[in-house]
Amino acid sequence: MHRTDISSLGEFKLIERLTDKIIYTDKTILKGVGDDSAVITNSFCMLVTTDMLTEGIHFDLTYVPLKHLGYKAVAVNVSDICAMNALPKFITVSIGISNRFSVEAIEELYEGIHAACQKYNVSLIGGDTCSSKSGLVINITCIGEQLQEKIVYRKGANVGDLLCVTGDLGAAYLGLQLLEREKQVYLEDPNMQPNLLHAPYLLQRQLKPEARIDVITQFANNEILPTSMIDVSDGLSSEILHLSKHSNVGFNLLEDRIPIHDECKQQAFEFGIDATLCAMSGGEDYELLFTIPAAEYNKIMLAGDISVIGQAVTMAEGNHLITKSGNKHPLSALGWNAFSGTDNL
Amino acid sequence: MHRTDISSLGEFKLIERLTDKIIYTDKTILKGVGDDSAVITNSFCMLVTTDMLTEGIHFDLTYVPLKHLGYKAVAVNVSDICAMNALPKFITVSIGISNRFSVEAIEELYEGIHAACQKYNVSLIGGDTCSSKSGLVINITCIGEQLQEKIVYRKGANVGDLLCVTGDLGAAYLGLQLLEREKQVYLEDPNMQPNLLHAPYLLQRQLKPEARIDVITQFANNEILPTSMIDVSDGLSSEILHLSKHSNVGFNLLEDRIPIHDECKQQAFEFGIDATLCAMSGGEDYELLFTIPAAEYNKIMLAGDISVIGQAVTMAEGNHLITKSGNKHPLSALGWNAFSGTDNL
Repeated sequence: MHRTDISSLGEFKLIERLTDKIIYTDKTILKGVGDDSAVITNSFCMLVTTDMLTEGIHFDLTYVPLKHLGYKAVAVNVSDICAMNALPKFITVSIGISNRFSVEAIEELYEGIHAACQKYNVSLIGGDTCSSKSGLVINITCIGEQLQEKIVYRKGANVGDLLCVTGDLGAAYLGLQLLEREKQVYLEDPNMQPNLLHAPYLLQRQLKPEARIDVITQFANNEILPTSMIDVSDGLSSEILHLSKHSNVGFNLLEDRIPIHDECKQQAFEFGIDATLCAMSGGEDYELLFTIPAAEYNKIMLAGDISVIGQAVTMAEGNHLITKSGNKHPLSALGWNAFSGTDNL
Repeated sequence: MHRTDISSLGEFKLIERLTDKIIYTDKTILKGVGDDSAVITNSFCMLVTTDMLTEGIHFDLTYVPLKHLGYKAVAVNVSDICAMNALPKFITVSIGISNRFSVEAIEELYEGIHAACQKYNVSLIGGDTCSSKSGLVINITCIGEQLQEKIVYRKGANVGDLLCVTGDLGAAYLGLQLLEREKQVYLEDPNMQPNLLHAPYLLQRQLKPEARIDVITQFANNEILPTSMIDVSDGLSSEILHLSKHSNVGFNLLEDRIPIHDECKQQAFEFGIDATLCAMSGGEDYELLFTIPAAEYNKIMLAGDISVIGQAVTMAEGNHLITKSGNKHPLSALGWNAFSGTDNL
């Protein structure tokens, strides 16, 4: 493939190449990219979130294709808007690039960004492209909208509410462990072919996570309004403690209700680690964790792809994991307490 | 001063320390920091801009105090909103931090951010704090608002319009050259004291630039509506060419009308470089460059701190600098053409 030095193009021409395919169908965008600022007309409440991804911390380009990285960078921001029960509308994208990247590489990154924009029905309205002395840095700001009365915060859960989660947990973490293992194998012997074909689900969960915008639409269609909500980016334990703190309630989490994919269980077994621990502390699942009044149990059951995993109790009772064997362990942000015998993670 | 390792605090506690002093007086903010996303009610048009600053490219911590860096990071974003004739309202702040920074250092950075928020009447409504493998990265997204009919784009200048600029140009660039020179002296002999006291204006322009929000207020008070506008971040030449391209007109720029501060002229003389070249190509002035119909000349004269530096001509006539000696040179983005004899910059 042809390699064009970014320095041969300059910032303005690079921006042109990255943005010339953007066509705005959203009539509220009076001006997208191409001026000092984007201009948007808006009547709903506006939601704003931002996330920075840095090379070597959030991603390793040894095994993360740039296109996937672009997609994921958008998805994680969209997930934060979904976690407010809102729909994403606009994003701005800032990238810091070192000169080891070619124009084509950055275009590949943008292909993923554009693909995510299309998938989530989001318009890219601005950004910044600059040099970085070392690795790649991506910062995305996402703006969403929702009626004020439909916005769901971390606060709002009441004693007796059901604790629910979408999809399944722990797979993204195990996907990462798998990629890390194969990277080590590769570094030791570059002739070895990576052994990844047996775990397509784990890899997809790590490399191309999806924001649960479908669940937000489902909530709207089924008139479900969670009392509190957060997305699972840092791991189930950490997110439960956030809901607890903001809502001033405790939670009992039932281990046997935590949704875990079969491929995840298998891989955890192979690694000799506890699959529940992966779900509790792994993170990067980008599923939605929320509470609803117990009376709305029926609505949730009809919705599908949602598991009831626990219930809100008083703050005085605290936050606990009820294990499969019936034991009760205090929850900690890292989920270690319940697994003090496990130190191989 | 006490040094707290960031790792000893963790991300959540760090965010708490950085944001616990924030009090929102703006009633349109339903939720600021502390949930998955900020929530804002809004009826005006919304403007969105974003800027990334990376260590070693946009700033050198050898001579840039962290507090000033924080202030500047906000100011450059606010400047982009001003360049649309709008007022800034909200910012999000993402920072990538390597572990050589202490909690106190990041708090110092935030002191500058908070100071700028206060100065520009902007609310910090969210952000992200993450690790970076190498240098410091700051990304700020700024959201502003304005009535649709008052928004000024880069397009809109007409043949005959006066080209105007606020304040003076070239000082920030010379401030940077001065700091770079003293850094070299210091690196060669750490006992040498920096020789900077003679140029307070140049240093202030480089280290603590201000966005011209005062000019936007002045425009509103005097019923001035520019036909096109941009802020001077890359240098006068580059910005004129942007207005030219978007408005489909050319410009004649009069060298003797370009506002240059005395301290700037003196320092340029000392460095043996052309002060006009500093104004044309230096950048980082964050002044506003705009056009108004010639019939509105009187309004501008009353406003003060605004210089008329040229006039729009047809696109076919092109973009030129009319030198003090009456010669006509084509303008290029770097401003080199008019100064082909000068190669020491």
